[in-house]
Amino acid sequence: MALLSVLTPFLVVGLCLVIGFMLLRPRETEATSPTSSAGAPQADHRPWVDQDLQDDTEDKGNEDEDGDPVDSNEEEEQHLQVPYSASRYPKESMLERSKDFYTLMNRRRTIRFISPEPVPREVIDNAILTAGTAPSGAHTEPWTFVVVSDPETKHQIRRIVEKEEEVNYLQRMGDKWVKDLSKLRTNWIKEYLDVAPYLILVFKQIHGILPNGNKLTHYYNEISVSISCGLLLAALQNVGLVTVTSTPLNCGPQLRLILKRPANEKLLMLLPVGYPACDATVPELKRKPLDDILVHI
Amino acid sequence: MALLSVLTPFLVVGLCLVIGFMLLRPRETEATSPTSSAGAPQADHRPWVDQDLQDDTEDKGNEDEDGDPVDSNEEEEQHLQVPYSASRYPKESMLERSKDFYTLMNRRRTIRFISPEPVPREVIDNAILTAGTAPSGAHTEPWTFVVVSDPETKHQIRRIVEKEEEVNYLQRMGDKWVKDLSKLRTNWIKEYLDVAPYLILVFKQIHGILPNGNKLTHYYNEISVSISCGLLLAALQNVGLVTVTSTPLNCGPQLRLILKRPANEKLLMLLPVGYPACDATVPELKRKPLDDILVHI
Repeated sequence: MALLSVLTPFLVVGLCLVIGFMLLRPRETEATSPTSSAGAPQADHRPWVDQDLQDDTEDKGNEDEDGDPVDSNEEEEQHLQVPYSASRYPKESMLERSKDFYTLMNRRRTIRFISPEPVPREVIDNAILTAGTAPSGAHTEPWTFVVVSDPETKHQIRRIVEKEEEVNYLQRMGDKWVKDLSKLRTNWIKEYLDVAPYLILVFKQIHGILPNGNKLTHYYNEISVSISCGLLLAALQNVGLVTVTSTPLNCGPQLRLILKRPANEKLLMLLPVGYPACDATVPELKRKPLDDILVHI
Repeated sequence: MALLSVLTPFLVVGLCLVIGFMLLRPRETEATSPTSSAGAPQADHRPWVDQDLQDDTEDKGNEDEDGDPVDSNEEEEQHLQVPYSASRYPKESMLERSKDFYTLMNRRRTIRFISPEPVPREVIDNAILTAGTAPSGAHTEPWTFVVVSDPETKHQIRRIVEKEEEVNYLQRMGDKWVKDLSKLRTNWIKEYLDVAPYLILVFKQIHGILPNGNKLTHYYNEISVSISCGLLLAALQNVGLVTVTSTPLNCGPQLRLILKRPANEKLLMLLPVGYPACDATVPELKRKPLDDILVHI
């Protein structure tokens, strides 16, 4: 009994340590799970990743098109270097081309009033080929463009998007907005998802899969796919088609499933594409002048 | 003494709880700091943010160009709706334009051999104006393009990038690579940062600042700025200029300081721009065929 009394403090200390350890374990798991949600390696395992560019939704490394520097030299070494021959324009022609391209792109607007008129499929194919010329981290080309023209699938997509959007509006905007339902409706009702001849759903592949089943890191996949969307927008504008640059909130997983895309693909953007409706309107917005976006040193 | 002996277990338990609590506190701090590094609100404060699109480096909402749906109707309400008139091309012309644009963009490559030959400044200005036509979350236009032609500043940038890149290479690649220093040197030595007539440093504004000093949320700023980089790449390619799409690792904060950019701006990309050197080479890489990137439904 005396022995037990003497040992009690030690037993209690031991018990406390065990309990303390058990308390610490789940916390460590919690602490890591938000940053490993996509099975991405931890930031501290990748000391070379720029703090500014860390993104917990994906694997990241160094952005570079041609399987080149920083962390993918292995790949570049497999490729022969070949001469590069570029188009060379005289100065006046360069200046004119730069102005014309700016004028063309500056006419682009987000258009929610899309005509049901059919659009040649080959034009859409060429726009997506153009998007596919974007640079990507280590030349992984981590994009999938799902082009939907089937009316039933378009309608399913619309139902999913509108259902989620309605929740988004109400959760986010609260009483102030609920009062004015008619105005809200114009926002979460997305007729163009039925009407547009094509919906382009852009997926980022957060990683690739090697023949042996291992994951292939897709460096900076979100930035790469966004750049390719920039080229896609340019290509559509260049042929007189319009779109809405949208990222439907909370719809990604549902849309991925109905489109039967694999789990390594995440929806980045949903672009309804077509000719503008003849009565299309846009908000009267200005763009920032050059001095507000350019700093020369 | 007997009393003390009886109380000992309780004192020990109390002490253990205090120690356990002290151990837990710093862990909680650790757990939250990676996701609040940019002062961004926590994900759980923003239930409307799509899980697929969460990014702890920035504030996010719904991507949309024209101050429009989901969460920025306040802004749209301030703007008149005006008719939109688009260019309309006949079908044959659309098809031809789509092919020509694809052919032009498909010739773009990342070029590391840049000629020192001067480039008209107005061409660069037009390319940046073009980038500024990109859509952005709630029309926030969250980009700053810093165009550096000053040789001294270019050299400072080169020194910072090369120093960090050397560390990146050695930390990442280890002994295998250290052995072959000469090969490594061709990768972390970036002569083009001195040679290219212009360096364009693209900053994303992770939030704006309202006149009253409050933060203005810049929804999806990284996606928006990446799309604008896509348009910038298209504009440069359209005039026969070349670049390297690079995201210099760990250099963002240092480069931001020497370029005197405010704390709400983070470096997204560094693009050296100029004519290609006459002996420029590229790795012999192929792009994925259409069937690998397009799924039709």
